[in-house]
Formats: sequence, structure tokens, C-alpha cells
Amino acid sequence: MTKTIEKEKNKLIKTIGNIVGESNILYDYDSRYTYSTDSTNITNKDELADIVVFPHNTKQVSEIMKYAYANSIPVVARAAGTSVCGACLPKKGGIILDVARMNKIIEINKDNLICIAEPGVVIEELKQAVEKYDLFYPPDPSNLKVSMLGGSIGLSSGGPHTFKYGSTKDYIIDLEVVLADGTILHTGSNCSKDVTGYNMTQLFVGSEGTLGIITRATIRLIPKPEATRVMLAYFDTLEDTAKTVNEIISNLITPSVIDLLDKNTLKTTESFYPSGLLTDKTAALLIEIDGFKSTLDNQYNKIIDICKSNNASFIQTASTKEEEERIWITRRSSFGATAKLAPNVLTEDVVVPRDNIVTLVKGIWAICNKYNLKTCIMGHIGDGNIHPNIALDLRNPIERSNFEKAKSELFELALSLNGRLSGEHGIGCEKSGYIAKALDPNNLNLMKKIKNLLDPKNILNPNKIF
Amino acid sequence: MTKTIEKEKNKLIKTIGNIVGESNILYDYDSRYTYSTDSTNITNKDELADIVVFPHNTKQVSEIMKYAYANSIPVVARAAGTSVCGACLPKKGGIILDVARMNKIIEINKDNLICIAEPGVVIEELKQAVEKYDLFYPPDPSNLKVSMLGGSIGLSSGGPHTFKYGSTKDYIIDLEVVLADGTILHTGSNCSKDVTGYNMTQLFVGSEGTLGIITRATIRLIPKPEATRVMLAYFDTLEDTAKTVNEIISNLITPSVIDLLDKNTLKTTESFYPSGLLTDKTAALLIEIDGFKSTLDNQYNKIIDICKSNNASFIQTASTKEEEERIWITRRSSFGATAKLAPNVLTEDVVVPRDNIVTLVKGIWAICNKYNLKTCIMGHIGDGNIHPNIALDLRNPIERSNFEKAKSELFELALSLNGRLSGEHGIGCEKSGYIAKALDPNNLNLMKKIKNLLDPKNILNPNKIF
Repeated sequence: MTKTIEKEKNKLIKTIGNIVGESNILYDYDSRYTYSTDSTNITNKDELADIVVFPHNTKQVSEIMKYAYANSIPVVARAAGTSVCGACLPKKGGIILDVARMNKIIEINKDNLICIAEPGVVIEELKQAVEKYDLFYPPDPSNLKVSMLGGSIGLSSGGPHTFKYGSTKDYIIDLEVVLADGTILHTGSNCSKDVTGYNMTQLFVGSEGTLGIITRATIRLIPKPEATRVMLAYFDTLEDTAKTVNEIISNLITPSVIDLLDKNTLKTTESFYPSGLLTDKTAALLIEIDGFKSTLDNQYNKIIDICKSNNASFIQTASTKEEEERIWITRRSSFGATAKLAPNVLTEDVVVPRDNIVTLVKGIWAICNKYNLKTCIMGHIGDGNIHPNIALDLRNPIERSNFEKAKSELFELALSLNGRLSGEHGIGCEKSGYIAKALDPNNLNLMKKIKNLLDPKNILNPNKIF
Repeated sequence: MTKTIEKEKNKLIKTIGNIVGESNILYDYDSRYTYSTDSTNITNKDELADIVVFPHNTKQVSEIMKYAYANSIPVVARAAGTSVCGACLPKKGGIILDVARMNKIIEINKDNLICIAEPGVVIEELKQAVEKYDLFYPPDPSNLKVSMLGGSIGLSSGGPHTFKYGSTKDYIIDLEVVLADGTILHTGSNCSKDVTGYNMTQLFVGSEGTLGIITRATIRLIPKPEATRVMLAYFDTLEDTAKTVNEIISNLITPSVIDLLDKNTLKTTESFYPSGLLTDKTAALLIEIDGFKSTLDNQYNKIIDICKSNNASFIQTASTKEEEERIWITRRSSFGATAKLAPNVLTEDVVVPRDNIVTLVKGIWAICNKYNLKTCIMGHIGDGNIHPNIALDLRNPIERSNFEKAKSELFELALSLNGRLSGEHGIGCEKSGYIAKALDPNNLNLMKKIKNLLDPKNILNPNKIF
């Protein structure tokens, strides 16, 4: 390290330390290494951040950004670090701005059906806090026990309940954002219905920290559904599985969840978290219905009939809250179970219009077979959103190369089916190389102009999305 | 008119005529006058457009924009002209680009739950077309029998069903847009769940034609609710009315509609469209519940109990589809009925967090009394969104001046209650003078920068919003 660079880094550490206090920065090698990873399983030792900072409030974030802007220092916003697309990996050194200590729920207002919270609030905590008021925040990414609001907004994360209830973007009505130069602004209001000017809120939701740092959010809530019922229907063919989904919807039923688990997912999950999943079936649908107790029987019976008439070979139903919870734990364990097959597991997130879902899933099976990759497929079939979880050893150059080839073919396949690269995980640096193939070039050009307008020095999470 | 200007106008007429054909342009005075008005009741003879053009396809729109861009000619996109905030009034001459002849529904795909349509499709036609497939497009502005998709997207219009189902913005997943310089782009995809890059779709929804011209939209649909039930509950105090709304929601019921009609609205509507409304009550709630038939009884009974326990003095219920329809016709007639009180009716559209609704409505009564304005208040109380419909004679300078004063005080009141200028009608030129008071200055500044980025010559619907 040259003396000039060293001097600059020392100045950076001193300045940031002065803003937030010594106990809220880390700059030793191990910490910088740890915070320069996320759940994508990829760490580049040459791309570590120079400092990790834990601000406690918006003013501190603004001061950090002012310094970073003046000195053209990259800033990567980070919440729980659960991104699976490399959305919070530092690519050019600089600052990791970790929002974990901005973790207060500021207000829950039952009459206004809103909640105001900081970006470090854990999603499950948020959900449980509003449930005490009989309110419901539907987004439920699988990692909700650890993932945080800030990251969830940055990636507009979804989850199983997106089919009926929409994803994070549908619940954010106001954001406090710190811009690249430290300017603080509010994008919306506490009114759930508001067309006073452009929709700036949705410009920041899903922008992966590349346009501003989210420091506070107002969240729209809905009344909590009175009751739920969960079932698993097994099928011998994908065609029957997809046809069942279409018929359920044709019968005016909107399940709160309609997820797909393929054979490998069933086998792998059952082998590591035994809970009675059938492992000899081609696919299963995890279906949850919700609403008033009085309406569940009718929906339930209709769904059972539709499953049977589409050759469901077996149907498991949860008759108690505990059984429901067991099915959910099993479902959420599918990623973790895949991780037991090999040292690493990489997950993809393609989405297609639902009438192409069978072609997509069969195509993924074929690609993964071709490259000899252990793959468990699950996903939100109602939304056409599929997650292949691929278990491999990233230290093995052949497996790694095979994964890269498979990933490329997977994206080509999804795009050829009028699909997109990501339904709910985002682009990060893992898919940025493919975005030009996915987007209308004029649209991509507009996005780049907007990025340049908001972040002319390219200091906000550089090398992400594009 | 100088010879140079005349020459330029002749060239404009000739060029646009060449692009779309002679039968698709109008440039006589009467037509230009007619198309330089909207439902705002304000026409400025000095601000007429120079030509009205009816393109048939995106290519023509692009060619028109290329010519307009090269020659810095303003272009005002127009659909049905039902704006009540002056969103499609020409302010600087130029071109009215009327999308009424781009009126095809291109595709309804039941499996993918989407519909693709052009901006000239009438909202009610769209709703009816998708209902044939048992699908539901919830946005229902009161003028849905005439208002068109393009305007509805440009203003992100709502309607009574917004409380449960969200507004237009929640249903648009892809837009084909022609930019100021004629560039055509697609903002999204046919996948309802898609986080591939920034959310450009929502940048254009609600932008009132100031950022681009919408030429096609992909709309997300949902399964149609099996059944509905409608009731009217009358109250003697606003406090009881508001408390009823809160209690219904606290009881986990999300009515598909929960609208407020005040005494003047009840009296005026009943007097012009007699349908049995009670006219001696302070306020009524129009409540619609929907969902599976099997669940309506429970909800209905619970709501009746809640209304009674909050001192509802009378409850009218619709027991047939025809009675429901009659209540709806009555409700939708409230604006038209107000228009019978005086030559003009102007409607406002403030929104506040719902716990401020009583203060807002009482404040509006007081302001309108103070300025001696005949006002019928109705609105979407569930969303905190209130429409005072004010009947007056705009030719009377005193009434006009009183209206302007009242409007200003109304906005001050809404803003002082943490509210906003518009919930679903937009800003247009009628409220643009107030937007600086309503928005965070840094947010407004960002909006202006984005406007300048997308429309550097300020030719797209100039003098609107800002």
C-alpha cells in the first residue's frame, strides 16, 4: 500500500469514527472480510471494503454520505447480508454502511393501517409486532428470521405470499432516503393513496442501494386474515401440477400461497428434516388458503376436488396449527437442506408468464442434468417464479465452470419464454452481466441515465444491476 | 398572427397530416377549442392547441414526437378528457395527441392473469371484457363509462374499490412509452413479479403525460370475487361514522368499498335521482363486501352489529343485484347531481391519514360555509380520501374568488393534518401552484431533475404537476 493510500484510509477511518463513534466502526482485516461477503457464497479477497460502519440515525448516514461524496468513496448499504445475488458485496473498496443498528419500529398505527420502521428491523419481528394489533405485513422471504427491512426494500423481496398479496413494493408508501451527496428526502407520505407528484418511492424500492440509502420506511398494512389452512398435493407429472394451479384460479380461488416443490426438493428436504414428505413423486404443490374461517371449508373442498381431478396421487393436509407450522418449517428448510448436499448452494430466481412454467421447469432439469449439477427446484408457481437451488463445491473449478454455463443457459431459456432474470432476489453483481440481454435497450439506457442523475460519481453500490 | 408563425403552423399541420392521414387531424377553431377543455371546467381561449391529432399506432406517436422534439412543439397527451385537475389542458399551444383511436384490447390471457390494451380503451369496456373470463380489473373511477385507460394510468386513478384492491398503479406491470424524442421503450414485462432493474413502470404511472406518452399497457388481473353485498348505514354524527369504519377494520373485515356521503350529498343526489336515500342524516357509509358467497353472511352480520353499536340510525341493504346496482348508480350520480345545483361543479381530492378524517371533513364544511359555497362531500373514507364537490357559477367573479380562497384553505388544512393534495385525481395545472407546499423540497427537486432528464425541452404536457 502506498503512503498516500494509507493516509487516505486512515483519514477515512478517523472521519467515520468521529461521525458514529469508535464503537460503531470496524476496520480490521477479519471484520472487513466477513462484511465483504453475503449469502451469494462468493467473496473476493481483492474487493474488501476499507471500513464497516454502523450508523444509529439518519443524520449520521447523511454525514457519512457527504464525506463519501466529497471524496468519491464507494458506499455499499447492507442490512442482514442475506442477498443471494451479490447485492451487498463491495466491488471497489470503500465503506460498508450496515444499517443493523437502526432497528427501531417507530410507530404502529392501527387506525391508519401503517407502520413506520427503520431498515435494520428483522422482517419476522416486524410481522410479529404488527400481528399484535391484528395487522398483517404479507411479504415473507424464506430467510425472514434474519433478513431485514432495508435489504427487503432494496431488493423488493417477495416470498410465498406474494401470489395473493404482492411483494415488498406493494406495501411501501414512503421512504426516507439519503442521496449520494448526503441530501435527506422523503419520497411519499403516510397516506396509502397519494398521487401528489411522481412516484419516487417506487424508484428507490428495488434499486439495490444504487440510488440512495434507505433510512426509514412507512409501510401500509392490512387486516390479518382470520384463519389459514395448508395442504400438500403430490403429482406424477408437471403438466398435471400446472393444470391444477390454473384450474384453482379459474375457480375464482386465490390461494394465499401456491408453491412448487420438485422431486429433488422433496427428497432432499425429507432426508435432512424428516417430516413425512413423500419422496417418490414428481412434484408437490404447497397450497395455503386464508380468510374468514367460514370460507375455508368451501375453498378447501374445491381445491381437493380440483387436485383429484388432475390426478393428484396423494394429498396431505394440516389439521392443526402445529401441523401447518411443520409444513412451513419444512418448506423454508428446502434451501438449507440443499446446502447439505455440497459445501455451497447457489440459488437462482427466474420468472416467466405462468403458461410457460412447465417448459421452464423441464428446461431447468435438462440444463442441470447436462452439467451434472445437483439441483432442487422450488418456487412460487402461481407467480411463474422458480428457484433452482444448485448444490456444488465452488472450490472445484469444473463444478464452478459448469454452474456458470448452466446459469447462462438458464437465463437464455427464461428470456426465450418471455421471462425475466429475477422475480424477487434482484440482480446484484451476479446477474448484472446478463441484464442487457433481458431489458429493452432503451429502457436500460433510461435506467443508466437515472443512475447517473442520482449518483453522478457512481459511489452508491457500484457495479450492481448494470 | 405573423407570417413566420403562420408558416410554422401550416408546416405543423402538413407534417402531422402526413404522419396520420388527413382524416386524423383537426385544426379548425371549434375543434381546437373543444379539445382544449377537460372536465375541470376551465378553458383559456388564449391557450388553445394548434392541432388535434388522433394517431392509430405507436409508430405514428413516435413520428409525431420526433417532429415535435426537433421543433420544440408542446404535446399534450389526451384520452377521454375527463381530468378534473386540468391534466390535459394545453398551456402553450402545440399538439393535442388524442389516443382515443388507439382503442384495442390486444390480449386477455386467463392463465397468466394479464390483459394487454391500448390507451384509448374505455375503463368499463376493459372491466367487462375481462369479466367474461371471470377476471377482475378493480380500478373504478366514477366516470368509468367514459374515462380511458391512458388517462387512468397517467393519473393513477382510483375509485371506491381502491380501499381493498389498490389503485391503477397496483395493476400496471408493463408500459410501452414514447419518450419526448420519439424513442419507444418497454418499462416492464408480462411477469407480474419482476425485479429486473429499476421500476420504470411506476415512474410513468401517475406522471400525467409529463415524462412520456403511454401507447400500450400490460395489466395484472385477479380472479373475480364470487359475490358482493351492498349496504348504506346512516349516522347522526361524523364521529360515529368514522368510529364505525375503524371498528369494521379492527374486526378483520376489509370491505371492498367503504365510502362516505355527507348530508348535502344525500340530499342533492336524492333530489335529482330519487332512489330512497334518507336526507335527514349527517352522513352515510356505503359499504360493499365481496368474496365467496359463503363468507358474506358472517361479514354482513358483523358489520350490521358494528354499525348499530355505533349508533347507526338506519341501515338500508340491497337484497338483489338490481338494488345493488341502483345504489351504485346513485353513488356515481353524486357528482352529476351536484352539477345541477349551479352551472359548474369543481371537485377536490384531498387525502389524510384516516385518524384525521373527522377533523378534515368538519374543516371542509367550515371552510365552505365561510365562503358560502354549496358543497357536497363524498369520498373514500377507508383511504382517508375526500372529494368536496363544489357547485358554483364560474362566471360570477365573487364565487370564483371565494372558491380559490376556499381551495387554498382546504389544501392548507389537509397538509396540516399530514395529508396530501391528491389521492386519485392528480395535480395537473389546477394544483401545481400548491405542490411546493405539499412536498419535501428535496423530493420536489428530484422530481424536477427527472422531468428535465426525460424531457429537456419541456414539451411533454408543460406546466403540469410543477
